[in-house]
Amino acid sequence: MLTLDKIYHAAFVLKDVIRQTDLIHAPKIGDDCEVYLKTENLQVTGSFKVRGAYYKISRLSPEEREHGVIACSAGNHAQGVALAAARSGIQSCICIPNSAPISKVEATRAYGAQVELVDGVYDDAYQRALQIQEETGSTFIHPFDDEDVMAGQGTIGLEILSQLPDVDAVIVPVGGGGLISGVAYAIKSLNPNCKVYGVQSSGAPSMVQALAHHQVECLNGVCTIADGIAVKQPGDLTYSICDQYVDEIVTVTDDEISTAILTLIEQQKLIAEGAGAVSVAAALFNKLDLKGKKVVCLVSGGNIDVTILSRIINRGLLKAGRSCDMTLELIDKPGQLKEVSAIIADMGGNVVAVRHDHSGEGSDINGCTLRIVMETRNHQHIEEIRSALLSAGYRMIEH
Amino acid sequence: MLTLDKIYHAAFVLKDVIRQTDLIHAPKIGDDCEVYLKTENLQVTGSFKVRGAYYKISRLSPEEREHGVIACSAGNHAQGVALAAARSGIQSCICIPNSAPISKVEATRAYGAQVELVDGVYDDAYQRALQIQEETGSTFIHPFDDEDVMAGQGTIGLEILSQLPDVDAVIVPVGGGGLISGVAYAIKSLNPNCKVYGVQSSGAPSMVQALAHHQVECLNGVCTIADGIAVKQPGDLTYSICDQYVDEIVTVTDDEISTAILTLIEQQKLIAEGAGAVSVAAALFNKLDLKGKKVVCLVSGGNIDVTILSRIINRGLLKAGRSCDMTLELIDKPGQLKEVSAIIADMGGNVVAVRHDHSGEGSDINGCTLRIVMETRNHQHIEEIRSALLSAGYRMIEH
Repeated sequence: MLTLDKIYHAAFVLKDVIRQTDLIHAPKIGDDCEVYLKTENLQVTGSFKVRGAYYKISRLSPEEREHGVIACSAGNHAQGVALAAARSGIQSCICIPNSAPISKVEATRAYGAQVELVDGVYDDAYQRALQIQEETGSTFIHPFDDEDVMAGQGTIGLEILSQLPDVDAVIVPVGGGGLISGVAYAIKSLNPNCKVYGVQSSGAPSMVQALAHHQVECLNGVCTIADGIAVKQPGDLTYSICDQYVDEIVTVTDDEISTAILTLIEQQKLIAEGAGAVSVAAALFNKLDLKGKKVVCLVSGGNIDVTILSRIINRGLLKAGRSCDMTLELIDKPGQLKEVSAIIADMGGNVVAVRHDHSGEGSDINGCTLRIVMETRNHQHIEEIRSALLSAGYRMIEH
Repeated sequence: MLTLDKIYHAAFVLKDVIRQTDLIHAPKIGDDCEVYLKTENLQVTGSFKVRGAYYKISRLSPEEREHGVIACSAGNHAQGVALAAARSGIQSCICIPNSAPISKVEATRAYGAQVELVDGVYDDAYQRALQIQEETGSTFIHPFDDEDVMAGQGTIGLEILSQLPDVDAVIVPVGGGGLISGVAYAIKSLNPNCKVYGVQSSGAPSMVQALAHHQVECLNGVCTIADGIAVKQPGDLTYSICDQYVDEIVTVTDDEISTAILTLIEQQKLIAEGAGAVSVAAALFNKLDLKGKKVVCLVSGGNIDVTILSRIINRGLLKAGRSCDMTLELIDKPGQLKEVSAIIADMGGNVVAVRHDHSGEGSDINGCTLRIVMETRNHQHIEEIRSALLSAGYRMIEH
């Protein structure tokens, strides 16, 4: 059973292994409430997962330690278990589906784990892990449905209460439910007046659905950029704690998550992964009644692939009018590229890519198209450039 | 005169205004030394500048306070002065060249400053500031060449010594020299054995040159992505303190700075601006003898324009082999695009853009070119894809 004792004990055990991550005031996030960020993206391994993994391992018997531990994950849990095992001086084997980004595989190896790459997806890796566990007698470390794991994550709740004693609400990302179970249990036990809210991706609302239907179910599929919380089925233990202690769980869309990631970069100089940013997305997009409250958004992790980060930033820039992609129809005569370039330069647009094509389908036989990607200041600036080009007689092709 | 007293007094005055920023262990930065990051990018306003500005303002007489303060900056100093003045309950006017990014102008306004946009570059804005100062009798807040400002920045030195008492070396970004003067004075006064190193951009080595030539000189021009330290002429006061207290100042290139920014994102989940990352660049590229040492890299700020960040990430991905842009020569017959796509997909490349052109110059009359941008795992992966395409009979056009 999860107890407050256990969470305090976990805090004691974890003291020299994990960082007590900073609570950072974020005055530009949230319109009518005061937002603080609990920065578990700055935790060792880049996510909170090491807390639960290390505490779980610390509870193993000497005999269990000898046989090592095994886990299955393509993400934060893999790195958490790998580091926790290394710091505990025991062997770890992590089964990772071979579709996982190479950066995550390398990071897990670098923490000292033996990595077993498995053909297929998560479920295949999970089956392989069970098989290895039977062969070797090692202990399987569940990513969330385990009371020791939950107790480890619950230490974040203790830290929040000590860093901001008059906190009114805590917003927590929810995948399988391990993090919010620990945090909600700790906070509600010590201060029942503090609200504990959960956030899932609308593309993977497994705990929302479980609470609505009063039973654990398995989603047919999940689809979200927040891969860290893309869980088809919540845990039995975590479901029952959420049912009892969590005030409400809401969902956010991928676009809302992307905006939250970009906001954290620009306003707070912090990198969050999709799963880590859902709490901030919920505050930004008014998913909860936070008016006048002191709110902690738990930013659970920062392990985002830079390729995806780059896409999120580029999309964010387009949506904010800070970059722009327009296509013009030209008459095929000399000097037009020069004239268009001059107009854009005069208006302060900064051209980053040009594509000039003759006789595409759908344009005049004498015509050609010019596609220009440029950096702009905002939507109004784009409109000004567009107007200047239209006034000069150019025709715009809408994408 | 700068004294230790003054720096301790600044620390006392600043206590409730600034954050004591976290010192974060960065085990993956630095081959043979132990690196910690002093995260002033997580300071309020996103940079250390608020420390000096607030302390300076706290020292003004009641009469001076009545007339307000004025500053000239397109960056961190603008936001630092604006917030410091607002928190002190006095008026501030900031002259900003109108070529500055709109995001910085807006941020400065949001902190409560009256912003005066000046046609031209920094020097024009500076002239305008002097003019306004004469008209209004307000106090000009120098960005670095002022003992109160230096004392404010020096509080970072006190914090480093209290957060890591056995630190062996501190690496500090250098522009005009205000930050390193305060930090070096504090650290050398308390622990003369601790090395204090400076880092400038190789495109703006003003302090390096001043120390080499034993006099303050004005560079003809500066060119660097680290705009926060793109200073043509160091201060007289700061020069003399650097000459006395700083062990060595080295330079780093824009490419090294970009790599440092990307490393901070991937390994530490932190956004640094160019100027903020030069200390990390110096450690990454072995510019200093740090073997076996405990080293603090001062990450001085995180206010980087997202547009530039996006370029740095994209360039970093290309250089690391994690994206790839290749052009193939095809024979113009049906089915080739399909075949190429199939080969790339089989090899695990993820196509993000395709451009298919007929009869370009320099290719066969029956030929056409196919330019493909794809996400890849690393340089070896790119080579594998390239080989597969060559084996299938396609010709590659080198960029």
